[in-house]
Amino acid sequence: MIIVLKPNIKKAEETAVLKEIRKLGYRPHVIRGVERVVIGAIGDERTQHTLETLTTWPQVENVMRVQKRHKLVSRESHPRGSVVKAGDVEIGGRKLVVMAGPCSVENEKQLMKTARAVQKAGASILRGGAFKPRTSPYEFQGLGEKGLKLLAKARAATGMPVVTELLAENHVDLVAEYADILQIGTRNAQNFQLLIAAAKTGKPVLLKRGMSMRIEEWLLAGEYVLANENPNLLFCERGIRTFESYTRNTLDLSTIPIIKEESHCPIVIDPSQGCGRSSLVAAMCKGAVAMGADALLIEVHPNPAEAWSDGAQQVTIEGFAKLMKDLKPLAAAAGREWPT
Amino acid sequence: MIIVLKPNIKKAEETAVLKEIRKLGYRPHVIRGVERVVIGAIGDERTQHTLETLTTWPQVENVMRVQKRHKLVSRESHPRGSVVKAGDVEIGGRKLVVMAGPCSVENEKQLMKTARAVQKAGASILRGGAFKPRTSPYEFQGLGEKGLKLLAKARAATGMPVVTELLAENHVDLVAEYADILQIGTRNAQNFQLLIAAAKTGKPVLLKRGMSMRIEEWLLAGEYVLANENPNLLFCERGIRTFESYTRNTLDLSTIPIIKEESHCPIVIDPSQGCGRSSLVAAMCKGAVAMGADALLIEVHPNPAEAWSDGAQQVTIEGFAKLMKDLKPLAAAAGREWPT
Amino acid sequence: MIIVLKPNIKKAEETAVLKEIRKLGYRPHVIRGVERVVIGAIGDERTQHTLETLTTWPQVENVMRVQKRHKLVSRESHPRGSVVKAGDVEIGGRKLVVMAGPCSVENEKQLMKTARAVQKAGASILRGGAFKPRTSPYEFQGLGEKGLKLLAKARAATGMPVVTELLAENHVDLVAEYADILQIGTRNAQNFQLLIAAAKTGKPVLLKRGMSMRIEEWLLAGEYVLANENPNLLFCERGIRTFESYTRNTLDLSTIPIIKEESHCPIVIDPSQGCGRSSLVAAMCKGAVAMGADALLIEVHPNPAEAWSDGAQQVTIEGFAKLMKDLKPLAAAAGREWPT
Amino acid sequence: MIIVLKPNIKKAEETAVLKEIRKLGYRPHVIRGVERVVIGAIGDERTQHTLETLTTWPQVENVMRVQKRHKLVSRESHPRGSVVKAGDVEIGGRKLVVMAGPCSVENEKQLMKTARAVQKAGASILRGGAFKPRTSPYEFQGLGEKGLKLLAKARAATGMPVVTELLAENHVDLVAEYADILQIGTRNAQNFQLLIAAAKTGKPVLLKRGMSMRIEEWLLAGEYVLANENPNLLFCERGIRTFESYTRNTLDLSTIPIIKEESHCPIVIDPSQGCGRSSLVAAMCKGAVAMGADALLIEVHPNPAEAWSDGAQQVTIEGFAKLMKDLKPLAAAAGREWPT
Repeated sequence: MIIVLKPNIKKAEETAVLKEIRKLGYRPHVIRGVERVVIGAIGDERTQHTLETLTTWPQVENVMRVQKRHKLVSRESHPRGSVVKAGDVEIGGRKLVVMAGPCSVENEKQLMKTARAVQKAGASILRGGAFKPRTSPYEFQGLGEKGLKLLAKARAATGMPVVTELLAENHVDLVAEYADILQIGTRNAQNFQLLIAAAKTGKPVLLKRGMSMRIEEWLLAGEYVLANENPNLLFCERGIRTFESYTRNTLDLSTIPIIKEESHCPIVIDPSQGCGRSSLVAAMCKGAVAMGADALLIEVHPNPAEAWSDGAQQVTIEGFAKLMKDLKPLAAAAGREWPT
Repeated sequence: MIIVLKPNIKKAEETAVLKEIRKLGYRPHVIRGVERVVIGAIGDERTQHTLETLTTWPQVENVMRVQKRHKLVSRESHPRGSVVKAGDVEIGGRKLVVMAGPCSVENEKQLMKTARAVQKAGASILRGGAFKPRTSPYEFQGLGEKGLKLLAKARAATGMPVVTELLAENHVDLVAEYADILQIGTRNAQNFQLLIAAAKTGKPVLLKRGMSMRIEEWLLAGEYVLANENPNLLFCERGIRTFESYTRNTLDLSTIPIIKEESHCPIVIDPSQGCGRSSLVAAMCKGAVAMGADALLIEVHPNPAEAWSDGAQQVTIEGFAKLMKDLKPLAAAAGREWPT
Repeated sequence: MIIVLKPNIKKAEETAVLKEIRKLGYRPHVIRGVERVVIGAIGDERTQHTLETLTTWPQVENVMRVQKRHKLVSRESHPRGSVVKAGDVEIGGRKLVVMAGPCSVENEKQLMKTARAVQKAGASILRGGAFKPRTSPYEFQGLGEKGLKLLAKARAATGMPVVTELLAENHVDLVAEYADILQIGTRNAQNFQLLIAAAKTGKPVLLKRGMSMRIEEWLLAGEYVLANENPNLLFCERGIRTFESYTRNTLDLSTIPIIKEESHCPIVIDPSQGCGRSSLVAAMCKGAVAMGADALLIEVHPNPAEAWSDGAQQVTIEGFAKLMKDLKPLAAAAGREWPT
Repeated sequence: MIIVLKPNIKKAEETAVLKEIRKLGYRPHVIRGVERVVIGAIGDERTQHTLETLTTWPQVENVMRVQKRHKLVSRESHPRGSVVKAGDVEIGGRKLVVMAGPCSVENEKQLMKTARAVQKAGASILRGGAFKPRTSPYEFQGLGEKGLKLLAKARAATGMPVVTELLAENHVDLVAEYADILQIGTRNAQNFQLLIAAAKTGKPVLLKRGMSMRIEEWLLAGEYVLANENPNLLFCERGIRTFESYTRNTLDLSTIPIIKEESHCPIVIDPSQGCGRSSLVAAMCKGAVAMGADALLIEVHPNPAEAWSDGAQQVTIEGFAKLMKDLKPLAAAAGREWPT
């Protein structure tokens, strides 16, 4: 750690800082600069007491970390990109993976129709929500287990693995029984107990970025999964909260090169939540594919106007088919194999 | 709801919208404006299908809600301010309430020393974390049940009720056994399963504002508590995430008059998390008291430099005593009774 | 406009609102809903007094606009996309346009070397700053007129039109004498006097998005240009300010489909300012091209480590050449003609 | 500066960094840590080339500043708080200063009535806009010189000094002729040419915080004023842009203790722009006074519903009188003398 002292402090104040640094397990190294004294504190920042607490002392101006805090998810620790398998589908390999399906599972007909249609258009994983976290208690909360059973039925019919959201520790066994990938939603991205429980199932975990999560915090939330001995982690960007109100969120596509640089885990882009507007989904997918996203997560509904949740961001079956057709040349230009 | 149609659309496109509005259970009312047609859709927006899904139709420009989405927490539904009791302490009454104690419970000596000191200075509720949500899996995660037992011991010794964080549904019974107020942290502010579980204990719930939660979303998260038949809700502002990096968060004191206007539930201010810098805590407390906050939640540690979590934002025992002394005349000027 | 009244108000309070609406020039139209009365006020919101002031009345809950506030920049008013010409280069046509060059003009050698290199790699417009807005008064403020003269020399040598920033009304004549496109920087995006002065030169204006500008505000700032009889407007996205600190800004690529939907003016993407990190520039360019950006604005420096401004975000000459090579197949897949 | 190298780099790569550091004028000081090499580069960061450009080199992980970038505005350079005089009124002294008046000057009657009323209630400086920066070109742009003349008339009648916004370098002489304090608005907070021009008049400059300005950037914008030999600077917090939409901006009251800690210049709070809602103004003023703000800037209008600009945030004359009455005991408790 780097400790910057205030200018013009007394020698005894400096000595006290050096003593405390040693007490907390670091070896101090003093640099006398033009106006300020700077102390390099040598030691493992990840396992030892942070020195940031020293900012409560009047003679300390600032404390800065040197080490990155994430470890197992880091590219440093695992230079080759990881490939995560869901059923027979590989995410993080040469092939582009498209996960598609309705926001919420509503009934058998809606799900089956959508599943068959998205598969035909090139999707290889089926998405669908059975437990839904809703802003208001008066909104549709998902079909629950019934929804999971319908997803399993759709998987049996199509062969597509299933990704669905896990909302609560208490549902872990239930959801893990039916799902091939456990999705952790944006509102639970720092619900560490849930992350640990999900990790322990051994199933792939798709970790959405929290609405206001910095990259570092997202990597560290992922670290909870790997530190609990589950290497099957997918990072999923779904838009961050900003001042902009035209879109529901601001989809941060810079996460694609950033996650590739910082981590070995695959990166998935969710343009549906990312914009909250179906008219923008196709363009965001194009950008994501060109930039090297490993997978897309797209909400598709046979009749978005009557969807039971988030209708405004779901594309129609026809819209999805057209989008896939338009993506094909871009995937080729970006050096990706097409799913089928 | 208000549906704004695009200019220059065909009659058949307008008719289709009117038909869909009726199908979804609303009664449409057409207004022909200067450039656009606007439709008022009459019906209960809280219980019926939202019409926001209509924005997926090409002829629809915009859909706006008319009703507020929160109900039980609203001032409309309960014009007098609510008073929430924790042990013998009333929050929301004439008296200012100060909740104080360490960020994390570390050991008996640290806790007892702090508890006695904050009580002496005027605090009436003891805070302390036993389960800690930490950004990194390598950081101290709290003493768990051992911490809860120490809190109970401090309560027995001082008579002060205890507020502590509930992190996981699986801990509800355990934490509720020891705590007088269940704190829901910022990272779990939209963990609705946890909110429901906390509500069902009947204990007062202190709901921190999510890091990037809009007022409306916060009110609706609170609605989950009241809708599960627990009227003992406290809203707690703890700073929101912004672009500013000088402070850890931006403490939004405008929430005091806003919560008072929109809701009948008490409002608590947490200046420690709110700024992340101990040197700012005293000033933020002054502002909060002058503006009518019902309670303050302040982190106090005998030796912040060696605190096991969030040392940078904890004030010393001496600092807390001075702060309380400085607050007294402001509380009086604001028409509040002093705690003792 | 839509005026939502509070529930349970007196008839006289409603009547007062209706009277005021008429006084302010609108025709009110009352809708009685389930809980609330809603008033549609018919009239031209763009030219008449806004009714948002009515929110200061106790009986008014909310006021919402119906009309969009931008007009001349809107796609509605001009359904075909505009093509803006700078010298012989068309922006907004079939060809992808790349504007490249150093952040600051430093000296003849640096500029000439960069200009020749970027042209060879496929750039068709030269960028370079002569007047630099710097956060600190102690940083390099640009070469001023000397820089403009060097830009003119580079244009003479290469034939490339020049884009450079206009910082102050007092420099309008000077900068317009040398530049082919006047750039309005993010810090001046709502400096309306400067926008008007730039518009009046008749030269193309490249309007960067303000750091915290909503789409609507950006469109309206552009409206200042068109309303001053200059149709040659380019919108340039350069990243918005968010809580993220990994990147300097968050480049919002969703602006590409949004500007295409809302406006007829071309959209330019600046990935250099947008990320503030040279290692991310190539990926962001790929996304922008795939999504249909009309032009890119890229900072290139022969030796970024010694650049006089913003070195961290500038790519090397070799980096730029590689980037251009990598973009070519994506431009083709996106249906764009290559610059040369 | 602190340069953090990547782990496991070659010796030659380290040597190259050391050589470049020396070339750029710093003296490097190497610290070998647990995993990484850290270099302290000794030299004046404010006047020399920044080393942040080294992040473009592959072997460099991170570069951090040590020195603060502001100097003349800093509390370090001027430990006693500055007092700024406008006419006979001292800002930054024991007395609380209230600046009040309409958002825009509309006509003589409106201005005179408001001026007399706010003075009677305790205001000591008159505010009023003559040149108005408006989001849309179709909105009222201010009376211009006519407005300035009316302000001068009101000053003559009441003896109150006048604060009014300066929008453009071209108006500097004109506005400085009539105004006692030159206000730089939020949209121009980094319009450095305007800041320099304002500074050169020698008149007090009230610098509003930019909508998305970090504290450091605000201090540096203020540095432009002092570096141009005008010590009469007032910082004015007016709310920052966040994701919240209930209020127009988020008024950041933590700026009061922060500016007091970092700078010797007075701090003014503008609760009108800060919230954009008249119902919140009184509470925000109470907080500001309790926290030690030197002055308040409040918008007052005889009839906000018909105000020509920003009516929603203006309080009535009666509302202002009540607010002042309510502030009095808080000012006393905060140790401030009352204006009259």
